[in-house]
This record gives sequence, C-alpha cells and structure tokens, in this order.
Amino acid sequence: MPDRVLAPQLIAPLDVDHVTYYASDDLPDAETLGTVGFFVPGYLEHPNAHWSAQMPGLEVVQLLTIGFDYALAHVPPGVTVCNAAGVHEQSTAELAIGLIIARWRGIDRAARDMVTGTWDHRRGRSLQGARVVIVGAGGVANRIADCLHPLGCDVQLVGRTRRGAVAAVQELPALLPDAHIVILAVPLTEHTEGMVDAAFLRRLRDDALVVNIARGSVIDTEALLGEVPRIEAVLDVVDPEPLPSDHPLWHAPGVLITPHIGGDTDAFPRLARELITEQASRWRRGEALVNIVSP
Amino acid sequence: MPDRVLAPQLIAPLDVDHVTYYASDDLPDAETLGTVGFFVPGYLEHPNAHWSAQMPGLEVVQLLTIGFDYALAHVPPGVTVCNAAGVHEQSTAELAIGLIIARWRGIDRAARDMVTGTWDHRRGRSLQGARVVIVGAGGVANRIADCLHPLGCDVQLVGRTRRGAVAAVQELPALLPDAHIVILAVPLTEHTEGMVDAAFLRRLRDDALVVNIARGSVIDTEALLGEVPRIEAVLDVVDPEPLPSDHPLWHAPGVLITPHIGGDTDAFPRLARELITEQASRWRRGEALVNIVSP
Repeated sequence: MPDRVLAPQLIAPLDVDHVTYYASDDLPDAETLGTVGFFVPGYLEHPNAHWSAQMPGLEVVQLLTIGFDYALAHVPPGVTVCNAAGVHEQSTAELAIGLIIARWRGIDRAARDMVTGTWDHRRGRSLQGARVVIVGAGGVANRIADCLHPLGCDVQLVGRTRRGAVAAVQELPALLPDAHIVILAVPLTEHTEGMVDAAFLRRLRDDALVVNIARGSVIDTEALLGEVPRIEAVLDVVDPEPLPSDHPLWHAPGVLITPHIGGDTDAFPRLARELITEQASRWRRGEALVNIVSP
Repeated sequence: MPDRVLAPQLIAPLDVDHVTYYASDDLPDAETLGTVGFFVPGYLEHPNAHWSAQMPGLEVVQLLTIGFDYALAHVPPGVTVCNAAGVHEQSTAELAIGLIIARWRGIDRAARDMVTGTWDHRRGRSLQGARVVIVGAGGVANRIADCLHPLGCDVQLVGRTRRGAVAAVQELPALLPDAHIVILAVPLTEHTEGMVDAAFLRRLRDDALVVNIARGSVIDTEALLGEVPRIEAVLDVVDPEPLPSDHPLWHAPGVLITPHIGGDTDAFPRLARELITEQASRWRRGEALVNIVSP
C-alpha cells in the first residue's frame, strides 16, 4: 500500500508522517517512487509533473499553483489532481490594491523623489466613488472586490457568463467607457490572450487606469504603448517577461511596473504547508479532498 | 438678519443662495462682513480665522479641517464652530493602506528600478495575519481598521481610555512588542508630541513597520534614525516639514516618505462642497448642525 508523500524541499517541514522531500532536479530512486501515493510537483510551472508516470501506486497529485493545465497533460488517468486555490489569491489581491493606491496617490513618484531629496506635494486621486470593472470572477477577482468595498469603490465583476451580480464578458464593451479602473484577473487562455487590444483600450475614458495582475500577454503591449498617457497602467505582469532593460514600457508615462511579484510573499510557504498538511492527512484518513480539478 | 455665507474660492461653487467667495488674502469690505452669518475660513491652517471678529452677525464658523484648536482661539464667544469630520478620513486611511503595501511588497523599490530598466524579483511580505496596532481611535483610525480587515489583519485600536474593544494608551507598552505594524493616527497634542521616542521604538520587534499619517512631530526623528533599519517606517508627515533636501531621513534604509498628501485628493473639494452645502442649508432652515466642536 503506497502511503508515502513526495514533496519539494521548498515547503518542508510538513506536519505529516512518511514524507520524502526532493530538491528541484533529483528524481528519487525506483523503490521510493513505488511507495509514493501523494505527489506534490515543483513550483512554479510543475517542471517535474511527468515523474508521476513512474509512480505505480500514485493516487493524488497536489499542485502548488492555481493553474493546472500543464500538469494534467502529464498525470496518468485516474489520478486525482488538486490545485492550490486559497494559497495565492490574497497576496495577489493585496498587490493590486497597493499598486492602484500607489499610482493614484503618487507613491511611485515620491519613491523616486527620495533619491534627490525632493519634497513635491501634489494632489492625488481617491478611490472613493471610483467605478471599478474586474475582468474575472474567480478567487483573485473576488478577493480584490472584498478589499475595494471598504475603500468606497463601486465594483463590477465580469465572468464568462452572467450569473447573479457577475456580468458576462459580452457586456464588457458597454461597461468599459464608464470605468475609472479596469483590473485584469483572468487566467491566460485562448480567449483572454491579447484580449486587451487597441479596440479595448480605445473604449476607455481619459485617465482610466488599467491594472494587470493576470498574465502579461492578456494585454497587447504595443497597443498599450499607443494609448498612454491618455490612459494609465499598473502592471505586475508584462509581455515580454522579464522586460528587457531597453524596452520602452519602462519609461512610458503613467505606467508603474513591478516584477511579477503577485503571489510571492512570505504567506506562500506558510499557506502551502497548511494546505498540503491538511490534504495529505485527509488522503491518509480516506476523507474527501478539497480543490479537486480532475477527474 | 445676516444670512450671507462667506467661503473660499477653493470650494466654489456651492449649491446655496447668498454666497460670497473670497480669494485667500482678500478681506471683504465692512458692508459684506456685516451680512455674514456663516463663515468658512481658509484651508489648511485657517489663516484668516481672525476675520470672524469683524463679523457682528456671525453665527457659525465651519472649518475645512478636522483639527480646530487654532481656529477656536480666534472665534468670538457664542459662535458655533463645526469641523470637517468625514471629509478627510477616507483619503488618509487609503494612503496608509497604500504605503504599507508599497513598503512590504517593494513597490517603492520597483518604482526606482524602472529608472534603470531593472527587473529585480524579490519575495514580499503579506498583510495576511499581520498584527496591527493603531494608535488613535477616531475617524481616521476606524477607517484604516475597516480597510485592514479584508486584508486579513488582526487590528487593535488604542485610545486615551479603554472603551469596548479599544485599548487604553497605558496598555501600549505591552502591545508594542507583538505588533508587526504600528500606525500613528492621533491628533497632535501635548500628550502625543514626541510620543514615539527611543523608548517606544526599542519596544518594537525587528522588522516592525511604523506608519505616520498623523503629524510629523509625533515621532522623534533622531530616535527613528537610530533604530532603522532594524525597524522600517512609512511617513507621510515628518519633522521638520517640508524635509530639507539634505536631511538624512531621505536616505535612511527601510524608510518610504510621501510629501504630506494624506487628506489631499480629488475627493476633498467634492466632499467639502457637499458638507458645506448641507451645513449652510441646515443653518438657513434653523435645523441642528452636525460636527459641532464648540461651544
């Protein structure tokens, strides 16, 4: 009966019995692989998801990410795959809030003015009464909405289809002209890649702020460069990434860039450890797992 | 019957009859002064509050600030004085949230890295689970607490005396060693000036973050310079202010400074206009005013 947990060193120690930790590239020996029933592939892009084909007793693959498409292609049929919903959303939401306030209040400019000791008081923009459209209706989008409400924003989520208070993506063209802030919080799919193109951006009012904490290629970078500074942008993800040092986006007026730090905080190892301890314990006890994405 | 409203040009137009607007230094003629019943002194430090002594029919002084001590000293006895509670709190709270996230997630560093086109990914600190002590229990403190709750913080307000969930200032020394973040949101008084001295700062844990959105002299600047970078600080107000370009605080490690922009957003003229329209209308109709601070 394979009852071993195989997990990356990155998230050690887990409060679970029979765990083997691996460093990033070290495939364990065949004897160990034969005892693995619960496998945690490596962060960020599951580079070793294919190891699962060499684990004859494998029952569960627990990912450290929300996205799971790449891993699914490498996991044998019949193995349960779970994602890491709950581990990353709040860190990403928090960054979105910080980036919006930083840009509207000029914290970015103030940080640069510190280098020269320049005290340059300017009036900022407040989020009170701002109309915010969040493209996306999943965990990150909902956490952002929760944080924007006490800041006095009027928030509209947009999902694939209309359900409850969530608008459908077909309604987006009509929503954009009234939005002060548009936040991209969608997975990267064939439908969302390049979604924010010149036509999308032209619908936005002057001084609108586009926020990308999704994936860089959701925005057409050339189209964005053509619309700033009529509109502004805060971008934790860009296309290409990492952004080459001579790329014009670094110096585009009204743009603030952070280096893809959305989900990466000290909360990640802590929450990942809690999730995997809980899931492995449930699996050992034969209880239902959470976050099942397949089958 | 003096029924005229005298208000600064800054907040024009008001939706009220019989208003005279003044530019900052223009004392109106004696005939106009004789008809004024409702006077709004200038922002920010009520530099013309003493005009009220020349208004024989004056009934109400409506301030544009929350603080009112300076104005009280210049207003004749019997005149009702109202402050601007509700106009500034949210803008200040919003800035506090933005400054905390900016520092913990490295948005300040990223803004400076943009100048050289440097993509420097580093793990940040998340607010999830952070223990926050807010020194102050008034409007700004409560608005900050409202915004910190959905970010996953554990918030403790500290007021002059214990009441309900608010701790008393005597409990502060015991609260400081456990706090990840200490936010100063108190008025400047003889009790709060220099309150954050070397003894206060030494009680803080390593990596604690001090947030000042109150008044610069609540912190002893020399004492702060002696404790960074063991602790960090985000400061919208400093002492001296404006900070001279050669002051060492500009380059203190772990410190982020904005140039006293706390309450100054596009929401200010809008909310001030709404408050004064409402108050002047109540006064004309003989109804009870809100925000009365004296008598």
